[in-house]
Amino acid sequence: MVSGTSIGITVKKNENLSDWYTQVIWKAGLADYAPVKGFIVLKPYGYAIWELIKDILDRKFKETGHQNGFLPLLIPESLLAKEKNHFTGFTPEVYWVTRAGESDLAEKLALRPTSETIAYSIFSKWIASYRDLPIKINFWNSALRAEIKATKPFIRNSEFLWQEGHTVHVDEEEAKGEVMVILDIYKRLIEDHLAIPTIAGLKSEKEKFVGAEYTTTLEGMMTDGKALQMATSHHLGQNFSKPFEIRYLGQDNEQHFAWQTSWGVSWRLIGALVMMHGDDKGLLLPPYIAPIQVVIVPIFRDKEAIYVKSKAQEVGNVLRKSGLRVIIDERDEYTSGWKFNEWEIKGVPLRINLGPRDIKNEELELVRRDTMQKWTINESGVVDSVTSILDEIQTNLLNRTKDIQRQYTSRTNSYDTFKSILDTKGGFIYTCWCGEQSCEIKVKEETGADLRVIPFECKEDVTSCCIYCRKPSNKIAIFGRAY
Amino acid sequence: MVSGTSIGITVKKNENLSDWYTQVIWKAGLADYAPVKGFIVLKPYGYAIWELIKDILDRKFKETGHQNGFLPLLIPESLLAKEKNHFTGFTPEVYWVTRAGESDLAEKLALRPTSETIAYSIFSKWIASYRDLPIKINFWNSALRAEIKATKPFIRNSEFLWQEGHTVHVDEEEAKGEVMVILDIYKRLIEDHLAIPTIAGLKSEKEKFVGAEYTTTLEGMMTDGKALQMATSHHLGQNFSKPFEIRYLGQDNEQHFAWQTSWGVSWRLIGALVMMHGDDKGLLLPPYIAPIQVVIVPIFRDKEAIYVKSKAQEVGNVLRKSGLRVIIDERDEYTSGWKFNEWEIKGVPLRINLGPRDIKNEELELVRRDTMQKWTINESGVVDSVTSILDEIQTNLLNRTKDIQRQYTSRTNSYDTFKSILDTKGGFIYTCWCGEQSCEIKVKEETGADLRVIPFECKEDVTSCCIYCRKPSNKIAIFGRAY
Repeated sequence: MVSGTSIGITVKKNENLSDWYTQVIWKAGLADYAPVKGFIVLKPYGYAIWELIKDILDRKFKETGHQNGFLPLLIPESLLAKEKNHFTGFTPEVYWVTRAGESDLAEKLALRPTSETIAYSIFSKWIASYRDLPIKINFWNSALRAEIKATKPFIRNSEFLWQEGHTVHVDEEEAKGEVMVILDIYKRLIEDHLAIPTIAGLKSEKEKFVGAEYTTTLEGMMTDGKALQMATSHHLGQNFSKPFEIRYLGQDNEQHFAWQTSWGVSWRLIGALVMMHGDDKGLLLPPYIAPIQVVIVPIFRDKEAIYVKSKAQEVGNVLRKSGLRVIIDERDEYTSGWKFNEWEIKGVPLRINLGPRDIKNEELELVRRDTMQKWTINESGVVDSVTSILDEIQTNLLNRTKDIQRQYTSRTNSYDTFKSILDTKGGFIYTCWCGEQSCEIKVKEETGADLRVIPFECKEDVTSCCIYCRKPSNKIAIFGRAY
Repeated sequence: MVSGTSIGITVKKNENLSDWYTQVIWKAGLADYAPVKGFIVLKPYGYAIWELIKDILDRKFKETGHQNGFLPLLIPESLLAKEKNHFTGFTPEVYWVTRAGESDLAEKLALRPTSETIAYSIFSKWIASYRDLPIKINFWNSALRAEIKATKPFIRNSEFLWQEGHTVHVDEEEAKGEVMVILDIYKRLIEDHLAIPTIAGLKSEKEKFVGAEYTTTLEGMMTDGKALQMATSHHLGQNFSKPFEIRYLGQDNEQHFAWQTSWGVSWRLIGALVMMHGDDKGLLLPPYIAPIQVVIVPIFRDKEAIYVKSKAQEVGNVLRKSGLRVIIDERDEYTSGWKFNEWEIKGVPLRINLGPRDIKNEELELVRRDTMQKWTINESGVVDSVTSILDEIQTNLLNRTKDIQRQYTSRTNSYDTFKSILDTKGGFIYTCWCGEQSCEIKVKEETGADLRVIPFECKEDVTSCCIYCRKPSNKIAIFGRAY
């Protein structure tokens, strides 16, 4: 008999979030280290979460008129260098291919850190007239950026799975609208499925995407008071259409430079899921994004095996028919205790225990992963009961993360208070900022807090002068330390 | 008004297949060249075909107990070199990353030409006991192999989209069974959806995958008498489990090396689709794999526009509800003639023309892309009519490609006849072979024909001595020139 505790999480979440996080990822079977430092492998359970995220986004992208495509991985140096700010931003982290087989290449090739340059050099050939616009294409691929800082699975890796969308429009208004359509799709995914609240707003000039006119962002707050950028959607203006000559003949018979956007989310969202919802027992997945929503564990002694297993299959099939993601853990080589423990570490939101006595009573025993509450229901109403309890778990998890965000939200216009909040609990600090990059840089240098976001909506009341230079200003900004 | 013919295919398929092929790919909007030679970009229409192939395979893989995962792109040289034959096979075509940012790397990193080595170094950590087996994981990714020969979109590129499956089993029988389960999934996809017949069998020792015990293959015959390898499924035996130390504790309490398979298909299948079914008008897609199965073209003068368009939407919605992939071409800026031409180039299997007179008569005009036959049906039975005509087109296309395969199949045991068949029409030649690699190599050197496949099933009667050395043998082999 294998001991259940041997595979348990041995660190408490609130004592050492970083070690806890890594243990959960390995022990829940989401990912593993790869042979090259900074790279990871996704195990099937981790990949299944990514597939669900992908399915939700892919459907919404298609509903809003986007199509998928494929771009090559390798970008010639000359092309990457065409938009200078952009290139400079990525230079320190680009992987370069310099050899093929036994030969040196004439021009070195970058592994895509992001695809603006290659996409736009190609789009420029596809566009002649306003009839060819808009172009709205998304790419599901991976990007490579050699991380020099400490890496953290899903949060900061040298290779990551993501999607990058690239659009081209006839006018600026349409491009700006696109930026917001996408930000809203991201917000709905993250809040409604991942059960994580975010603050939507603008990045500062300093923090915006290199080459963008402006960057919109969704900022999340982790359980340790550190912020995490969850998704970004950029208005590129004509910053790329000019160097890449993306021009179209308008209905006015004149040539115009087009307007562009780009946007993306990565598997970082999986990291956020782990950090936000997990507990000392391990992972805890919101039902709407859980690859396994319900696990049925048949409990039996040898001679009852066939009888109990066949009932478990029957219940499982009823639930599957109603569209739920269910597995039945029939393995003979593990004890029930070992199985309970494994599914708790893996964060399956609901467990059904099924033994001979339950069958006799036409009952099922349910165990919620979020509260560990255990109770009995009638077998006859299993679909309704399970569906509504999954909804309840989903709501409960969102309420919890909203509470966390609330607890980690402060406002102040005193720089001393600002620093002491950062040193005690961290979190988001609403404050007032003059808009000068010099103040933003000073705050970062002196406190380690970035300007996370200039929120679109703000109900916080902050006195109207800059937190750093004290110049009068009505500009609200949210600062915080971040991943 | 834009002239219809300006975007048409200007080369006849039977006069210059190669130029015709390239024109169809660009003009049908499947793909475009990338900035680096040998690389291509997939446009949304081409990617949509890949998505359909992916969906079909992914469902079948999951039904047969496989899961998806993600492997890193970069493989350290030392790891790639661990299985020597394998490494030597890929050396001339590996892309090497030697720099990151401004620094040289201590060990150069290969861009994955295939993932056996990295997958198995990781699998070895996951496997301790027979309880951990089988492992059956598939990876949807891209592979990179610097092509030194002339490249051809989809058929031979330096980067290609594919899936690679990797499995680990307790015993050899199970692994051998897996190889055949997968080959059958491939055969069904290619024959039932892509409407292309293939010959299943073994590759020779010379042609097998480097590092495999044996390779099974599906060989297709193109319309110019050249063969194309469509899919392969490899039995790896213990060739990788030994160097990578993939060992498990058996039920017998002893350590054993595991048994393995790997298998893959790539976007080459899209190339085969184009070559097999296309004609002088352009692409022609089998309905079961066509991203657009039906295009409805409303035909109207200005004042009838709203009336006709709304009817087209109505018919389109009825068809979509029944699960068909339909688009309505409402664009005002193009003439009907231009639209007809565009959808013919794009190979949409069925077109519905809809004008005011049709609406009045409660009729629809249908045009089949495969025969260009045009006729009228009652609007009331549109779902049944369209469904059955799509089935008929699918069957017709498979019959055509079966005919092509038949026309290009010969048998002989005379080396002179063999050579003259190759020089006149090419195709598959069933012959007898002694099993010696020296004969296979001589045939290749003297005629350019490879040993394509040793078929599992053979009804051809070939005299029982080797085509080259004339030694007695019962071994049937199929030779042919190939892509």
